[in-house]
Amino acid sequence: MSDGAGNGNAKNYGNVPIETLKSVQGLELLQGMLDGRYPGPPFAELLDFGATEVAPGRAVFVGRPARKHYNPSGTVHGGYAATLLDSAMGCAVHTLVPQGQGYTTLEIKINYVRPMFDSTGEVRCEAAVINMGKTVATADGKLLDGKGRLIAHGTTTCMIFALP
Amino acid sequence: MSDGAGNGNAKNYGNVPIETLKSVQGLELLQGMLDGRYPGPPFAELLDFGATEVAPGRAVFVGRPARKHYNPSGTVHGGYAATLLDSAMGCAVHTLVPQGQGYTTLEIKINYVRPMFDSTGEVRCEAAVINMGKTVATADGKLLDGKGRLIAHGTTTCMIFALP
Amino acid sequence: MSDGAGNGNAKNYGNVPIETLKSVQGLELLQGMLDGRYPGPPFAELLDFGATEVAPGRAVFVGRPARKHYNPSGTVHGGYAATLLDSAMGCAVHTLVPQGQGYTTLEIKINYVRPMFDSTGEVRCEAAVINMGKTVATADGKLLDGKGRLIAHGTTTCMIFALP
Amino acid sequence: MSDGAGNGNAKNYGNVPIETLKSVQGLELLQGMLDGRYPGPPFAELLDFGATEVAPGRAVFVGRPARKHYNPSGTVHGGYAATLLDSAMGCAVHTLVPQGQGYTTLEIKINYVRPMFDSTGEVRCEAAVINMGKTVATADGKLLDGKGRLIAHGTTTCMIFALP
Repeated sequence: MSDGAGNGNAKNYGNVPIETLKSVQGLELLQGMLDGRYPGPPFAELLDFGATEVAPGRAVFVGRPARKHYNPSGTVHGGYAATLLDSAMGCAVHTLVPQGQGYTTLEIKINYVRPMFDSTGEVRCEAAVINMGKTVATADGKLLDGKGRLIAHGTTTCMIFALP
Repeated sequence: MSDGAGNGNAKNYGNVPIETLKSVQGLELLQGMLDGRYPGPPFAELLDFGATEVAPGRAVFVGRPARKHYNPSGTVHGGYAATLLDSAMGCAVHTLVPQGQGYTTLEIKINYVRPMFDSTGEVRCEAAVINMGKTVATADGKLLDGKGRLIAHGTTTCMIFALP
Repeated sequence: MSDGAGNGNAKNYGNVPIETLKSVQGLELLQGMLDGRYPGPPFAELLDFGATEVAPGRAVFVGRPARKHYNPSGTVHGGYAATLLDSAMGCAVHTLVPQGQGYTTLEIKINYVRPMFDSTGEVRCEAAVINMGKTVATADGKLLDGKGRLIAHGTTTCMIFALP
Repeated sequence: MSDGAGNGNAKNYGNVPIETLKSVQGLELLQGMLDGRYPGPPFAELLDFGATEVAPGRAVFVGRPARKHYNPSGTVHGGYAATLLDSAMGCAVHTLVPQGQGYTTLEIKINYVRPMFDSTGEVRCEAAVINMGKTVATADGKLLDGKGRLIAHGTTTCMIFALP
């Protein structure tokens, strides 16, 4: 992915300190990652993908499937789409998590519609919250290619809890 | 992962030629990957995990969660467990796919039970076929730490089809 | 459900002959059930729910939760929402199945957001196709109360096949 | 279902008072339903199925598919298997819920393997807890015919909470 396309202006990757996690509301935290004020996720660096937009109840991630993401049969591994959808759906929930609280993903469900190749080009993963409760949230997401064709879609169930 | 721990004796990664995919039964192909006769999946190289055992209707993968697999909150990204489970469950199905046929994953469902850290050590993902039909197969899998504690579990639905 | 509310004008319940299933396209068949030209599903009679609208890629079912649908804890059994969602999502797919072909549900995934009571009143289940392939289709659905509050939501994966 | 086959000795159906729900541990409550000391679920009366065994982390339900459970295409409606699996998986979790606490089903995932007919005979749904946490539990289940053939299988995610 071109510099900044996938991870905003993030130049560094690492962990966000627990104090920051507790003192900043979810959307602020995610916007801060896009702005490069907080480190991005190491797994996003490894797989070369990242967030491009966050808004209340919504998140968008992009990536560029490459040979390094392949399984032996000549298409991109299913774990790649699962990772993008998990990221986008979890972050969509995170944008609505109140300050002082955190979330954890209880489960994800991913449907695979079309294969990805290194010729697919940039893919875009859009997720939105379906329901935001006090202790449980659900979201869904779609992974699309540059022509808007559906590659995969998914849902998630997250639990909201008070940070220790 | 130490050399050979995750990917048997696989020294190379890449694609298996379509001719090989068509001429070799699934279990033979997977055993050949473990033996290093066929290239392993590039995505397994990128994420540093691999198969250690295959048997009819069954597959085991191992990995070693590390900092590079982290999300910003200080635990391993959910895409990592999804990738191991997708790999193991898909390969469990693949072992039973007749020669001349292939399979594709229609969907996976992953439940997250415990977080992983770089201190977790080696994790083991065991998958088994639940039902093998002529056109549809299902499997489930468990991801366990070195003490046998459950980290995540999942199911998959695959479609079996004649290779072109 | 009062006559016509849940099952259009359907006065009878039973099976549609296989000859009819083969000679009529899915949307026509479903519209014929709403119009009372074909028998409605016995399970809809037993649970007292039914279709109210079908359109290409879309289906709406309604029901009225009652004491008979309860589990022992004083809320409606989860099987009731699963049944409405399975019906609506399957029919949404069915509307797009070409003549001479049939479909079968491979899997459903249901999330429960709010409990239902006999005081909930009429509930409405709206489903839409997400992706329609030649052999596989996916759809999602939402179950809403009269005020538009989300009760449950789900997804399905269906297989399309030539009728024998 | 013949008297006692599906619902133990349950002669009555209805709600269990909230005081009872709070004062009795889950397994005791379920065993009391089997023994006829507590009312069984109205939805089980409507659909004609019921529990036959409960044990710590485990529950078995049986039913007998009939014409009344059919959808229009001449097989049993998918909601029937979903109902049995939801019941058995939820009860398997319930057996391990401590006194003073309750549980709610966040989501179920059902895979359909074989159709059911009125000629299928009695079906048996066996469920077991996969993981029991303090706030979240997961379980899976299988629905089998009299010859042990798999009809459907599923998983569930439940939330455990303090009763008000």
